[in-house]
Amino acid sequence: MKANLYEGNGTFRIHDVDIKHPGPHEVRVKIAYCGICGTDLHIYDGGLDYRIKHLPQAVGHECSGVVEEVGSDVTDWKIGDRVVIRPLDYCGTCVACRAGHSHVCANLKFMGIESEGAFQNYWTVHERTLHHLPDSISLKHGALVEPLAVCCHAVSRGELKAGEYAVVIGGGPIGLLTALVARYRGARVVVSEVNPVRLSKVKEMGFDTVNPKEVDLVKYVYEATNGDGADIVFEVSGSQAGLDTMVNLPHPRGRIVLVASYPHPMQVFLRELFMKEVNLITTRVYEAKDYEDALDMMTKNTFDPDALISRIYPLSQVQQGMELCASGVGDVVKVLIDCQKTE
Amino acid sequence: MKANLYEGNGTFRIHDVDIKHPGPHEVRVKIAYCGICGTDLHIYDGGLDYRIKHLPQAVGHECSGVVEEVGSDVTDWKIGDRVVIRPLDYCGTCVACRAGHSHVCANLKFMGIESEGAFQNYWTVHERTLHHLPDSISLKHGALVEPLAVCCHAVSRGELKAGEYAVVIGGGPIGLLTALVARYRGARVVVSEVNPVRLSKVKEMGFDTVNPKEVDLVKYVYEATNGDGADIVFEVSGSQAGLDTMVNLPHPRGRIVLVASYPHPMQVFLRELFMKEVNLITTRVYEAKDYEDALDMMTKNTFDPDALISRIYPLSQVQQGMELCASGVGDVVKVLIDCQKTE
Repeated sequence: MKANLYEGNGTFRIHDVDIKHPGPHEVRVKIAYCGICGTDLHIYDGGLDYRIKHLPQAVGHECSGVVEEVGSDVTDWKIGDRVVIRPLDYCGTCVACRAGHSHVCANLKFMGIESEGAFQNYWTVHERTLHHLPDSISLKHGALVEPLAVCCHAVSRGELKAGEYAVVIGGGPIGLLTALVARYRGARVVVSEVNPVRLSKVKEMGFDTVNPKEVDLVKYVYEATNGDGADIVFEVSGSQAGLDTMVNLPHPRGRIVLVASYPHPMQVFLRELFMKEVNLITTRVYEAKDYEDALDMMTKNTFDPDALISRIYPLSQVQQGMELCASGVGDVVKVLIDCQKTE
Repeated sequence: MKANLYEGNGTFRIHDVDIKHPGPHEVRVKIAYCGICGTDLHIYDGGLDYRIKHLPQAVGHECSGVVEEVGSDVTDWKIGDRVVIRPLDYCGTCVACRAGHSHVCANLKFMGIESEGAFQNYWTVHERTLHHLPDSISLKHGALVEPLAVCCHAVSRGELKAGEYAVVIGGGPIGLLTALVARYRGARVVVSEVNPVRLSKVKEMGFDTVNPKEVDLVKYVYEATNGDGADIVFEVSGSQAGLDTMVNLPHPRGRIVLVASYPHPMQVFLRELFMKEVNLITTRVYEAKDYEDALDMMTKNTFDPDALISRIYPLSQVQQGMELCASGVGDVVKVLIDCQKTE
């Protein structure tokens, strides 16, 4: 079979590799599509080399597929089942796992970083990582379930309630999906984004938008809320400017959810949070329920997934897909890899 | 009557001022004792001049006293009632007040900063600011109720549960009181402090202590918790070193409560919080319930308040009290002003 492996130094190349037959509790999934995530771009730029132990390695984790082979002790899954994969490998015994929070396991291995990922014809995974993909969701759209689950988790962590006013700072794929989840759950949403191409994409999907380089976002939000301030803010930009602005947006006892990840220590004006008793809420990956929420939301046709899929490359062209995403220009939201197409 | 007024430029001086007879819903309290708070030291060093509109002004807000005169519409209070004062003047109509969070009112005036305070023979205040001081608590000890309520609020914001392992970073007055509240509510507590005098005071009160200049606090906490990490961390030091360490202490889904206030933007390694899905919880002043909790805790004799009171100055010597506290040396925990003694 074919796998496109990360070789280090920003290089991805297709290889012939052996098929891995599943162990007793494993399942071999014929991967249909796998999206390129911001995390994959961090791998591409070398920023996650410290987490990848053995090169070359397949990465990728936003995938859909069909069960091709099941291990001897697997009873819940059969050949032909359409699935998505929740790529978390947890220890089951640490303080987080004991408390039921295995998604933040102290020894968590993220499949596709700390172990091999989905940019392959087949991915052999533990049965506990699987969720059924309903027939009404295409395999192509199924590749969006993982990032959508990230956003379902973020919105749940923020305890968003219907009728609330939400600000999403950053209009990239995760910002857009966060806005979609917040709107689906009944919030009024404004998205702040500086890139005009992304901004028009967000607007096309029916959202209020602000370009904070042209409009004072804080003033906009207070005017939109009769002087109260936002109920909830999602910081998805990962930028210092986003962190600087976010503290001024919520009303007292409002919430800020940090959806972006920040590789270095950042400046935060904690006094502004203190004055309003606003908590900083963190969110990492997802729990099983977030996958079910994402799947449920997709079956309800609340948005057009095709509007988010900018381009599909064959498995042989992971490199080109990374380059396109990393270029940060053009009308790129989400790039998928067709993991069965090898040329 | 006499009042000791802040004149600006680090100067406090005693003045003759007129007695203010109470309006319909006001009460005139004969102030017994009033503590010097860290906030008062920020006034002393000029850092809060932007919040004080008219100089000279009495400041001070950690007080006890006895009702001396009541307004025409006051029905719940009578002359001779022993009281403590919750020094919050809120608007009642903003988004926070409407939601029942008047302590973080968007238009909050903190009495003793935005309006006059307790360093006077008498303080005339709204009746809604009063709490009964039980007979079993002396007026001297009553001056500790306000800072204790700050800590009750902080511990409640952190949702501390009995049996949890708590780290308190900073062993000044608020750190020590936070540790006392956490222990009273059933936590195992370690206090981290760099000042050897404060450290020995904390140790005298029966706490585990760490001087992080001599012992690796992170290692200490993981060893004390069988490798799990702390359930909850209170950052009371207000220092960059405290912020740098705090992110490494809690286990996944643990909590960090920011009790200190930070006048400038600070560096926070948000990634460490993200990896463990640890929220940053803010806490500001107190609600009515925190005063009741503090009063209840003091009636239970769970600690010796005299151990915290280092020195009592007459009203005429607020200046000397500020200087002693600001010197940051010696065996100083809490300095009180005897507001009836004027020479």
